Amino acid sequence: MSKNFFGMPSSEKPPEQTGTAKLPPDGNPDGPGADLYHPADMAEHLEHLSLKEQVDLLTALPLEEAAEAVAELDEHIRVELLENLDTDTAAGIVGEMSPDDAADVLDELDEDHSDALLSKLHRADAEEIRSLMAFDPETAGGVMNTEIIILEQHISADEAIRKIRAELADKEIPYYAYIVDGNDVLTGVLSLRDLMLCPPGMPLKDALKDREPISVTFDTDRQEVARVIGRYNFMALPVVDREGRLLGVISHDDVIDIINDLAGEDMLGMVGAGLDESPETPWLESVKMRLPWLIVNMLNSALAACVVYLFDGTIEQMAVLAVFMPMVANQAGNTGQQALAVMIRTLATDKFSRRKAWNAVRREGKIGLANGLILGILILASLSLLTGRTDLAGVMAAALLTDMVLGALAGASIPVLLKEMGRDPAQASSIFLTAITDGAGFFLFLGLATLFLL
Amino acid sequence: MSKNFFGMPSSEKPPEQTGTAKLPPDGNPDGPGADLYHPADMAEHLEHLSLKEQVDLLTALPLEEAAEAVAELDEHIRVELLENLDTDTAAGIVGEMSPDDAADVLDELDEDHSDALLSKLHRADAEEIRSLMAFDPETAGGVMNTEIIILEQHISADEAIRKIRAELADKEIPYYAYIVDGNDVLTGVLSLRDLMLCPPGMPLKDALKDREPISVTFDTDRQEVARVIGRYNFMALPVVDREGRLLGVISHDDVIDIINDLAGEDMLGMVGAGLDESPETPWLESVKMRLPWLIVNMLNSALAACVVYLFDGTIEQMAVLAVFMPMVANQAGNTGQQALAVMIRTLATDKFSRRKAWNAVRREGKIGLANGLILGILILASLSLLTGRTDLAGVMAAALLTDMVLGALAGASIPVLLKEMGRDPAQASSIFLTAITDGAGFFLFLGLATLFLL
Repeated sequence: MSKNFFGMPSSEKPPEQTGTAKLPPDGNPDGPGADLYHPADMAEHLEHLSLKEQVDLLTALPLEEAAEAVAELDEHIRVELLENLDTDTAAGIVGEMSPDDAADVLDELDEDHSDALLSKLHRADAEEIRSLMAFDPETAGGVMNTEIIILEQHISADEAIRKIRAELADKEIPYYAYIVDGNDVLTGVLSLRDLMLCPPGMPLKDALKDREPISVTFDTDRQEVARVIGRYNFMALPVVDREGRLLGVISHDDVIDIINDLAGEDMLGMVGAGLDESPETPWLESVKMRLPWLIVNMLNSALAACVVYLFDGTIEQMAVLAVFMPMVANQAGNTGQQALAVMIRTLATDKFSRRKAWNAVRREGKIGLANGLILGILILASLSLLTGRTDLAGVMAAALLTDMVLGALAGASIPVLLKEMGRDPAQASSIFLTAITDGAGFFLFLGLATLFLL
Repeated sequence: MSKNFFGMPSSEKPPEQTGTAKLPPDGNPDGPGADLYHPADMAEHLEHLSLKEQVDLLTALPLEEAAEAVAELDEHIRVELLENLDTDTAAGIVGEMSPDDAADVLDELDEDHSDALLSKLHRADAEEIRSLMAFDPETAGGVMNTEIIILEQHISADEAIRKIRAELADKEIPYYAYIVDGNDVLTGVLSLRDLMLCPPGMPLKDALKDREPISVTFDTDRQEVARVIGRYNFMALPVVDREGRLLGVISHDDVIDIINDLAGEDMLGMVGAGLDESPETPWLESVKMRLPWLIVNMLNSALAACVVYLFDGTIEQMAVLAVFMPMVANQAGNTGQQALAVMIRTLATDKFSRRKAWNAVRREGKIGLANGLILGILILASLSLLTGRTDLAGVMAAALLTDMVLGALAGASIPVLLKEMGRDPAQASSIFLTAITDGAGFFLFLGLATLFLL
């Protein structure tokens, strides 16, 4: 047994798990003890420096370290930094990155800048990066890594092991080896361990189980990628073209990034903020991203205002209605948002099934009904005691109950309907929900008041 | 070189990446072609069966397959199923699980049931599971895996490799080997590749870089665990006790689950739903979880109603105010929720820094001001045109602008304040935000109206 089974010197390694210290649970990142060993820590350190200091530090760092830190930087800081580095240093940094990271970084720059950097790279590297840049960043193709170990199915297990060993010079230890036929079509996936357990002379073809490997096509949405990986606990997922030819692999760290991004997108999308907003987003950009949805919200709430306007005369006769009216709408809105949040999460993490989705909507209706009954009774009792007007209390309780059930059903249905329409189930859903619960709440409460109280 | 470097027959393997078919992007999980090879698919299949069919199928499956499927089941279905299986089968299934999964499953059962199952397991297994059950499931200890390969630092690299090889009989290929001193204190982490590159006779102690390994203590919150792993792109993170002794490791698939859970918790928590709710949660349990926050919301909106009540007389004189009043509050609420969503995401994924957090609050204030100015001007123009009353339009625009800035500042501050208080930054934040934007909106609008319009 050779101790150097994987014994090739290597330029790239799996993340190393050492640092200067055990992580303090709530450490001060600005303190003098900040750990600059890890790219993420170096990136954070850079973010606290002035642009000039950033440029000086990056120019002084070894290219590989600089590349790792730049890959971890926030997009807006990275763009500014790369535009201010001299072109040779910037190209050197981009050239050290894995092709998928390089493509992501260059995608953020304007075309002149990215062309200038690409022209300084080796032709083959530049071409690979360009081809990755052609994929939609929201899809599997946009996040996949192309530095993988591909084995042809006719070779034997020991040839495969020899090939892996040779390729380790510039690749990580793979979790899986990807097996292709003569046309580069993915025919199977073997874990490193499967491969080790094979009889040395067995062709890989025979080592594969008689199943097609699970893969996604390059145009599969990132959300679906995250769902598949989360479902099967894969450490990496192969990406193929329409003919099944292997294009690349989505790896562990990409998956964590995708899941984190998507989780944020749901919450940000729900309220009409920009899907990739962070405190590092230039504030005017945030204004631009949020304004359209605020205008939609204003138009929606204008509709609700029209409902109130219909009952102008009622309010004139009984101004106290204006006191309770917002309570009905607010309560139904909150009920609906609870249903909304549960449904958006479910659609984000589970395989979509129409039957299950509509069952879930029914379930939310029941919950809304139960909570509506309880709160309705509370309101009936407390308002009767407080105002001495059982009729007002009854109208309020009835409007509240009805609007809460409606809110629950609407909150649960909106994401399902958006999904069925092929849209993002979260986008602006909270805004539309509020329009419904406000409009209906005002109409029910003022309508019932007009009928029974005047 | 031996082809059987890792050549031990094994009872547990990394997830295999084969299935019956390439995943259809929107496959029908209910169809007859459903893939039952993967535990996740088997679990989904089980969820569509009646309880009796579930019991029959699980009893017929090999224990290992049954265990893998049960580990993937939804909690509520799993509890019912395990309570209806005969105790021997149930204990057999639990015994086949990894200790951390077994502890999670037994935690869900009532004590009688879990004791009954534990009493049927080997004493050592039962004790390990019991000790894992003692950890808070929200902490690193509650999710860590104890089936890891631990190496003492005085042994040499080739001894280490021999030891790994021997332990592979019932463990996965490790990404990292954990190195401890004579007191079981974690002294370092070596990737499998580092180990392979070591000169055979070198003691592990000398192979370690002169840094303390990054680890978390058993009581570290899951959120912090997810943040550390996401930040450093680790594939696994060691968990230690207060003295630094190695207790276990949080592995790849746990991390994906944690990140998915936490992302959901933020969104669900924000609106006061149960943090682990899904459509599989019994609906009465959902009622119980959501009702307290709905009552808080009602009390909050009662405060806002009191503000309106203060201006009862104003509304009596000018009922049209009731038409526009909700628009102001709604618009400020939406503005605040956008800020809220951005801040909750940031606090969830970035290391907390007080300075950065309050800078972000300032940024949100600026965004609120800009959007408030734009919408204020829109309202001023359209309301003047529509109603011919510039004074009413002016009052509305002024109230809107002020409430939107307030909403933005409140939405951004609430999560930071909760975090500073050591609370979950998301919990019910949307409910408190709405109380502020409603109350302030009504007060500003009706107050200005009383001053300038009557």
